[in-house]
Amino acid sequence: MPLWKIYHPAGTYNAEDKKLLAEKITGLYASIPLPKFYVVVIFEEMARDSCFVGGEPNNNFIRFKVDHIARTLPGPLIREWWIRKIDEIIASHVKDRGYDWEVSIDETPFDLWSLQGEIPPPFESMAEKRWVEENRASSYTAAEKLPVRLTLTPGLAER
Amino acid sequence: MPLWKIYHPAGTYNAEDKKLLAEKITGLYASIPLPKFYVVVIFEEMARDSCFVGGEPNNNFIRFKVDHIARTLPGPLIREWWIRKIDEIIASHVKDRGYDWEVSIDETPFDLWSLQGEIPPPFESMAEKRWVEENRASSYTAAEKLPVRLTLTPGLAER
Amino acid sequence: MPLWKIYHPAGTYNAEDKKLLAEKITGLYASIPLPKFYVVVIFEEMARDSCFVGGEPNNNFIRFKVDHIARTLPGPLIREWWIRKIDEIIASHVKDRGYDWEVSIDETPFDLWSLQGEIPPPFESMAEKRWVEENRASSYTAAEKLPVRLTLTPGLAER
Repeated sequence: MPLWKIYHPAGTYNAEDKKLLAEKITGLYASIPLPKFYVVVIFEEMARDSCFVGGEPNNNFIRFKVDHIARTLPGPLIREWWIRKIDEIIASHVKDRGYDWEVSIDETPFDLWSLQGEIPPPFESMAEKRWVEENRASSYTAAEKLPVRLTLTPGLAER
Repeated sequence: MPLWKIYHPAGTYNAEDKKLLAEKITGLYASIPLPKFYVVVIFEEMARDSCFVGGEPNNNFIRFKVDHIARTLPGPLIREWWIRKIDEIIASHVKDRGYDWEVSIDETPFDLWSLQGEIPPPFESMAEKRWVEENRASSYTAAEKLPVRLTLTPGLAER
Repeated sequence: MPLWKIYHPAGTYNAEDKKLLAEKITGLYASIPLPKFYVVVIFEEMARDSCFVGGEPNNNFIRFKVDHIARTLPGPLIREWWIRKIDEIIASHVKDRGYDWEVSIDETPFDLWSLQGEIPPPFESMAEKRWVEENRASSYTAAEKLPVRLTLTPGLAER
């Protein structure tokens, strides 16, 4: 679900930096909770003088482009909280190192998505919970599509 | 219309593999039918230790990121069928070779799109049909914007 | 806001070409007006035989993939005008040089976006106007979130 593309100047991050940042990002989504393996982070170097901000070459700019799939952030409070949370998490990799940066998130369709050939289980279902625990995609039964917190409504008594 | 970005580890596919996969993908969309040249597939290598899944480097992971433009997939049945169909088509390039993989599709605005300077013709119009046959973009008349299966409704008779 | 990804064959553009194209694109958005530094243009080379159009390798193809964030283009007239305007602006970098090309624009959420750790100010607010003038992100007050052209409605007089 989230796919993080991080476009950065060549030489910005070494292997350890990348791992640390990917772990922090993964931790944020794992706390929702979501299966850890849903979180994909791809670092991509931009060639020198190939990134322009405001029409000027900027070789000091890092662009975070994120796709959310498994969850929609509901309502303005949570959306603002989330975008600020991300800025906190990435600060030591951008702001504190003197880079310019920008973050944007898109929300793409939940039902046009597959992982290892499996269609991810429904929101907060028993199967999703099991995926969180096992941290890998696997097939699941129709019964496991039910929500962990199943709520039914009263049956008809009389009319 | 569809734009397929395929992020893969360096050395995953040779020129022949790429052509075969691009042909299979193109064939799927051509069967709708859509003009073949609508289908753009771009293969992009990820540098070693630059792709993380669940916070761990995964140099065995292939990420398919697809944008649909010309068509929306209507309804849950067709959406599920489509995502499963794609998994069938790519299986021999991912699963059967032991890679991990993930596929997600976004649907982006039809009316913010152009090809060779032409705005693509309306859904199932005569112009679109001609584009399918000629397999190239060209200008079209207002009359060619009409649907191939034109249906009018009865005129007013009396009130 | 807009993020322009330009996928092009290796060697298509030199540093001067890139700067000129980035300036033209920036000029278009600056005329809205929007802060110039909102406009990010990233050029990305595609490796030879890694781009397929209609199932065939096309090493002569340039794909413009644009994300809009700060503004939605309202209504069919403006949307068509915009897509044609873009084609005009890029023509000397694609058509006039004999390349094939395609442009598509996505519109992604305004409220899931940040710049230098700041959430961009509201549409045509005083803060946005200041950002246009200063051409950099900075913090702003609650009062600066108000529209430049503030319109109130009549108060209650009697019931």
